[in-house]
Amino acid sequence: MIFELTILGANAAIPAHGRFPTSQVLCINHRYYMIDCGEGAQIQLFRHKIKINKIHAIFISHLHGDHYFGLMGLLNTMNLRGRTEPLYLHAPKGLQEIITLQLKYSHAVLNYSLHFIETNQEKSVFLFEDEKVTVHTIPLLHRIPCCGFLFREKAKDKNLIKEKIPIDLPIAGRIALKKGEDFEHNNQILKNEDYTHLPNKRRSYAFCSDTVYLPSSALIEIIKGVDLLYHEATFTHIHEKRAAQTFHSTGKQAALIAQEARVAKLILGHFSTRYYDLSPLLEEAKEVFPNAALAIEGETFSVEE
Amino acid sequence: MIFELTILGANAAIPAHGRFPTSQVLCINHRYYMIDCGEGAQIQLFRHKIKINKIHAIFISHLHGDHYFGLMGLLNTMNLRGRTEPLYLHAPKGLQEIITLQLKYSHAVLNYSLHFIETNQEKSVFLFEDEKVTVHTIPLLHRIPCCGFLFREKAKDKNLIKEKIPIDLPIAGRIALKKGEDFEHNNQILKNEDYTHLPNKRRSYAFCSDTVYLPSSALIEIIKGVDLLYHEATFTHIHEKRAAQTFHSTGKQAALIAQEARVAKLILGHFSTRYYDLSPLLEEAKEVFPNAALAIEGETFSVEE
Repeated sequence: MIFELTILGANAAIPAHGRFPTSQVLCINHRYYMIDCGEGAQIQLFRHKIKINKIHAIFISHLHGDHYFGLMGLLNTMNLRGRTEPLYLHAPKGLQEIITLQLKYSHAVLNYSLHFIETNQEKSVFLFEDEKVTVHTIPLLHRIPCCGFLFREKAKDKNLIKEKIPIDLPIAGRIALKKGEDFEHNNQILKNEDYTHLPNKRRSYAFCSDTVYLPSSALIEIIKGVDLLYHEATFTHIHEKRAAQTFHSTGKQAALIAQEARVAKLILGHFSTRYYDLSPLLEEAKEVFPNAALAIEGETFSVEE
Repeated sequence: MIFELTILGANAAIPAHGRFPTSQVLCINHRYYMIDCGEGAQIQLFRHKIKINKIHAIFISHLHGDHYFGLMGLLNTMNLRGRTEPLYLHAPKGLQEIITLQLKYSHAVLNYSLHFIETNQEKSVFLFEDEKVTVHTIPLLHRIPCCGFLFREKAKDKNLIKEKIPIDLPIAGRIALKKGEDFEHNNQILKNEDYTHLPNKRRSYAFCSDTVYLPSSALIEIIKGVDLLYHEATFTHIHEKRAAQTFHSTGKQAALIAQEARVAKLILGHFSTRYYDLSPLLEEAKEVFPNAALAIEGETFSVEE
């Protein structure tokens, strides 16, 4: 099963150097979840051949424009492309009012239903689930209410040891074993531990943008051990003071969070326009946390099962 | 003096085939006027090396998203780029409310003043002037309130016949002659017609998008004889019925308007996404009005003095 993150944009504040503002798509087994939606996100979706009406739900971290100004265009295009499936939109208070107002003045009636779910920026709470994933908020600290998102695959069934399974075992027996139960078959109890392996691990992705450096136990507790951590790294560490003043983080600080939370891989993003060359950001992060990468547009980060 | 139109985008409804939605910039002697501002307009401004804070005023034809979804991003970027000069925003009722709401939720305070001027879609009225240009609205007929814009250079001074001007003529005399007056110099009356040529013509540009075909005398009267006419041509003429149903025009209809109004040059735009190859639109227009061109992004249409 696919579990992969595609970067559509990771520039801070404005599009620059050919880089788009923040937007990305997490794909879990062919279902797409969009995270932030900066201006031009729909252009990037076309460019990277992601069908926009495969997007099942959208998660907006906060209402700074570089994280949501692409949303209205995307919603319109979804409509023009024939969407009828409901769309779930998770965002801070205000987005519903903004979207409703713009739809009103364009006299637009969407052919699909929009469901707004207000996020909570104060504590980590359950936000969303479907059959593939659960999503919780990650409280962050920025100039306006802002939260990240923790995506975690749902608990999976155990894996059958195929060569041991009796050929005539009915489907009910297979299901029971996968669920971790024993099963009686031909007057014999099939003990679960003899016929199954543990399920694959539940893969996870934490998105943290935008935020001041938060080396708090609360944040670390939420994101600890995730397979992928995207953490904003607006500045290099020589601009630590500027980062703090603007409620942003440095490359080094992102790496310290990754190290402390013992994540498997760190992705840096939300690059200040002052950096044409992003390698200094990556280098300072790697000194602390070697398994770090830059959120380059079009790149896909996969997590194996 | 420069009088030139640069196309930033001319696709209808959505960005497609690498084409951006409607946006363009008219430059008159290094002062820039933006007309419509579809998503990604600021990206196109960077790409075509137009400094965004040289934009003096913005004109939005109507509140369909493909004509204004790039505006909020542009306003933010103007602020981040240090704008302090006031910005004049001409648009239908609703835009002020939309922008004010988004600024509120981002806690943004712009360092420049925004002045909203509501357009009138019912009749052609004076809208804007500065020392270079006057702008009047052009009533159009679309699914929501919509108007185009007529830009006309201001009346110019007469041109002095330099070789005839007495070398000791004071500056006041030169000014008087340029204004069309006679001037007494060394006890002699300098008759204006002996010392001046007529001023250069007042160049003009009419922007008409989006609209159903309007071969009315009212529209023709407003745009007659303009140097440049941009007219929407969403469909080819075999889709005449579809064009009428959606309150759009065909390439042929745009050309009929250009012919009837005896404009100098026609630019076709607002292309339906169904057309990857735009040449059929141009061909059908040229059959009626040969001096027609396509609004290709990055192209500049100049009008000589």
